[in-house]
Amino acid sequence: MRLIESKDNALFKRVQRLAHDKRELDGGDQLIWLEGIHLCQMWLERRGLPELAVFEMDRHSDELLELARFLPGHSSVTFNATLMNAVSQVGQGQGIGFIVRVPRGQVWTAPTKRAILLDQVQDPGNVGTVLRTAVAVGLEAVYLTPGCASVWSQKVLRSAQGAHFSIQIHEQVDGVALLEKAALPVLVTSLGPDAQDLYESSLPDQGIWVFGNEGQGVSPALLTKANQCLFIPQAPGVESLNVAIATALCLYEQRRQHSR
Amino acid sequence: MRLIESKDNALFKRVQRLAHDKRELDGGDQLIWLEGIHLCQMWLERRGLPELAVFEMDRHSDELLELARFLPGHSSVTFNATLMNAVSQVGQGQGIGFIVRVPRGQVWTAPTKRAILLDQVQDPGNVGTVLRTAVAVGLEAVYLTPGCASVWSQKVLRSAQGAHFSIQIHEQVDGVALLEKAALPVLVTSLGPDAQDLYESSLPDQGIWVFGNEGQGVSPALLTKANQCLFIPQAPGVESLNVAIATALCLYEQRRQHSR
Repeated sequence: MRLIESKDNALFKRVQRLAHDKRELDGGDQLIWLEGIHLCQMWLERRGLPELAVFEMDRHSDELLELARFLPGHSSVTFNATLMNAVSQVGQGQGIGFIVRVPRGQVWTAPTKRAILLDQVQDPGNVGTVLRTAVAVGLEAVYLTPGCASVWSQKVLRSAQGAHFSIQIHEQVDGVALLEKAALPVLVTSLGPDAQDLYESSLPDQGIWVFGNEGQGVSPALLTKANQCLFIPQAPGVESLNVAIATALCLYEQRRQHSR
Repeated sequence: MRLIESKDNALFKRVQRLAHDKRELDGGDQLIWLEGIHLCQMWLERRGLPELAVFEMDRHSDELLELARFLPGHSSVTFNATLMNAVSQVGQGQGIGFIVRVPRGQVWTAPTKRAILLDQVQDPGNVGTVLRTAVAVGLEAVYLTPGCASVWSQKVLRSAQGAHFSIQIHEQVDGVALLEKAALPVLVTSLGPDAQDLYESSLPDQGIWVFGNEGQGVSPALLTKANQCLFIPQAPGVESLNVAIATALCLYEQRRQHSR
């Protein structure tokens, strides 16, 4: 395995750019840096081989060995500890990272089952946590409007814990067009007067949930498309829940009502 | 109102230390920096006047005026924009901050109603989101073991959105002692073989929920105190949910089963 020790090395610089969310496109694909054992394991399980594996020199553990076993004769390099620390986005790196290729800019198709539309959800931690919950509850697709946090950024990848690789993700989606095209009920959480208590409502088995921006909520153009407005009951004087929390409560209540 | 424009000013330096989570104690109290309109409004509503209000020079808005009305003749200073930016922990400051006093180190008392014990939950965003959810669902108290994120740190304050001021918070709690002292069922989420599906279980109306560290889960000493072990159903191949999501799902399912 080739050892890289110079900060002037082109490959090191490339990894560093990717680790800082600089976009690198190749044809219809985007190249992404995945850091850490868990994300790399998840990639191997769900998507296969990476474009490149980067190991840290002199870092050894059973988990790293296990990962290496899946990369026989595969394109790998080694960074010394200084270079690996320089690209790491977390306090304590884990001695491994992948460059992987994800398709982007595919034309979205409307969902036929339960799905989520995130409308200008800006916080990367929220977007990542929603993805993680969506996978846990068994959704097939998540759609994001322009104005959402960039879904393949390092922060979103970290909080989603590998959920990206188990669900269809469509970014830059025209929300109104999606809701018009999908032949599914549209479900929105709202504090408006016509909203029903989530836990006293009969939720449809299939439907698209729309969750809005942390401050402004769901945008008016999307609100007008709602077939059912719901509120999550809260103690007096409380204004709102975190958007990722609201998403989880809605999806799990729907799942509970339909026993899966 | 006194205008402060020098980075050498002692009060500016003090605010800057507090804004960077340097601990300042005064008798049995801790002094805390609250940044932004929302947190300052919440403090005024729930706790009363601050020790000191800091406004930004030449920043005017209806919300700032409204806040100022509640501080007649109260101890206030003005920072110029440079100083205010220097203390701001968020990208775009909102022209206001408070120094406030919170009691600390009180002896905890065991809960008599629904409560949460967080066991070494390390991520500040998770701790803050749990607090926000706990207030929304109407809990009276949250307990945290040593090893949890510092509950009055800027990141926890930001993600809790003022929830701190509406609930009893006990830090540095001996978890085993708490569970032994409380005459309440202990509820733990677990992936163990004896865990029951949350949505197929009969949950007690009152009880202490224990939620554990993001990586290791609930520590063994606390697990042995569990009266009921529950799991949140998840799609095949999914390992876990974010701890703040798990907390919300459990608390809201308990609330649903008991209709409040």
